[in-house]
Amino acid sequence: MRAVTIREQEVLTDEFPDPVPGAGEVLVRVRAAGLNGADMMQRRGLYPAPAGSPQEIPGLELAGEVQALGPAAERFNLGDRVMAIVGGGAQAELAVVHERQLMEVPAVLDWPAAGGLPEVFTTAHDALVTQAELTSGERLLVHGGAGGVGTAAIQLGRAMGAGVSATVRNRECHAQVAALGATVLDPDDFVEHGPFDVILELVGAPNLPANLQALASEGRITVIGVSAGAKGELNLLALMAKRARIHGSMLRHRPLEDKALTARRVEHDVLPLFESGVLEVPVAQTFALADAAAAYDAFAAGGKLGKIVLTL
Amino acid sequence: MRAVTIREQEVLTDEFPDPVPGAGEVLVRVRAAGLNGADMMQRRGLYPAPAGSPQEIPGLELAGEVQALGPAAERFNLGDRVMAIVGGGAQAELAVVHERQLMEVPAVLDWPAAGGLPEVFTTAHDALVTQAELTSGERLLVHGGAGGVGTAAIQLGRAMGAGVSATVRNRECHAQVAALGATVLDPDDFVEHGPFDVILELVGAPNLPANLQALASEGRITVIGVSAGAKGELNLLALMAKRARIHGSMLRHRPLEDKALTARRVEHDVLPLFESGVLEVPVAQTFALADAAAAYDAFAAGGKLGKIVLTL
Repeated sequence: MRAVTIREQEVLTDEFPDPVPGAGEVLVRVRAAGLNGADMMQRRGLYPAPAGSPQEIPGLELAGEVQALGPAAERFNLGDRVMAIVGGGAQAELAVVHERQLMEVPAVLDWPAAGGLPEVFTTAHDALVTQAELTSGERLLVHGGAGGVGTAAIQLGRAMGAGVSATVRNRECHAQVAALGATVLDPDDFVEHGPFDVILELVGAPNLPANLQALASEGRITVIGVSAGAKGELNLLALMAKRARIHGSMLRHRPLEDKALTARRVEHDVLPLFESGVLEVPVAQTFALADAAAAYDAFAAGGKLGKIVLTL
Repeated sequence: MRAVTIREQEVLTDEFPDPVPGAGEVLVRVRAAGLNGADMMQRRGLYPAPAGSPQEIPGLELAGEVQALGPAAERFNLGDRVMAIVGGGAQAELAVVHERQLMEVPAVLDWPAAGGLPEVFTTAHDALVTQAELTSGERLLVHGGAGGVGTAAIQLGRAMGAGVSATVRNRECHAQVAALGATVLDPDDFVEHGPFDVILELVGAPNLPANLQALASEGRITVIGVSAGAKGELNLLALMAKRARIHGSMLRHRPLEDKALTARRVEHDVLPLFESGVLEVPVAQTFALADAAAAYDAFAAGGKLGKIVLTL
């Protein structure tokens, strides 16, 4: 099979042996695979794939058709449209995924949307619901609202009945983020628009002191991105006085049972909202597998709202 | 009535008008009232009483007998032995407390134990169970194990089936802390004894970087004391990689419904463990109300394991 691979920071398309599904696993004929920040870090040599995942082939999410079933795999039938988060290896013609990690693709979604859905909506749901326990009536602030997880979080927050604000550095994206339902705030001047019950931090440590100032009593900060810096000053007395909490979270290194549980939660809480048209996957651009290098360059260049997706 | 009062940082005993119970409130004839760190801060002029609580009379916990009932108060009868956390005013012959904040005193406890129980055991239970969600089989580290909350947390952690370690600065207290069931660790050298699932931070920000190092995957840090410093460096990437969380918490400024709810939880989860002899209130020393100044000095001097309690 053909697959994307990264050698000495160069993005190539190369031939690999076809993978074979083991017990409980499904062989998926990949039709679309979204790009994510972790792929960029892997390209820069900073972020090796988790143990047990393909080391040579990047890609953390995919959508495609069930091509073969391993022994004891019984959740899906041949030809079913499925999608999943995987530990790596998604950017390939074929991928093996444990059936407990797979979700059925809602009928309303085309392949690029399905290939760009799992990572950002699972991450956003895990951060907002499982970690921060966001409820209706609360005020949510998303730092980095124009990114993949940011756009998913804004839509999910709105769908759950929260009032949503978002900081967006790139002014060209302001109108599109506002169209998703968020009040767009200046990243250097958000404190006065608080207090916020939940702050989703996709930017990093420089926001930490102001986040704590802008947080409501019993507020929650969930940190899932630190591109602007990892270390910041935390005022524990302020945290105590607000009876607040700070979560850190990432999906990548979780064990199978955790990834399966998040998949069940997304099936239950999130996928019906695509069926009903409340949520959508913003896809900025699609590239053929052979043009993976151009896709990676487009992702790195940024400035576009929505996912970059490889299509096969 | 006679009561402790603090004027220009001096601890006095003085006469005040008897308080009158309002709707749903109970007049308690105070028999014992424990001292707490917040009283010391109030003495130093750093920590005003919460709004709605007596400003002149310190004291955050009390035990005593029901002397009179306000209109619609129906949970207790005259003469019942009760105890509570209050926003202030506990160090007095009489105190008015809302009946929803009161708990019945277990028959096995004498007055000094009952007067020194509510604050530390409610704080420890709230921090370990409500915030950190400690479970059996987990490893708990208590920083500041010789203090009031520390000794309560060690006992509660053991009773819940956790393995408990504690750091204790004062070497003279090591044997007593070990006797409560904790492995005593050097405060400067605890990381290598981890990982810990839950870390209860009673000392402050200087421990923050090492706490994060010593934390297990999906670990929780609950900060409820910052005597050694409030501001520290937090590595958000480490927090993400461990999928960990940091809680800040304090009881003092909570509204009635929150204090009532914590009282119900303590009644349900903690008080039966006094009845069965699993938990005890370590009382270091008792003082008469007239000797309150000496009690405050003894508390400030430290070095003793257990509560300082005023008895009336």
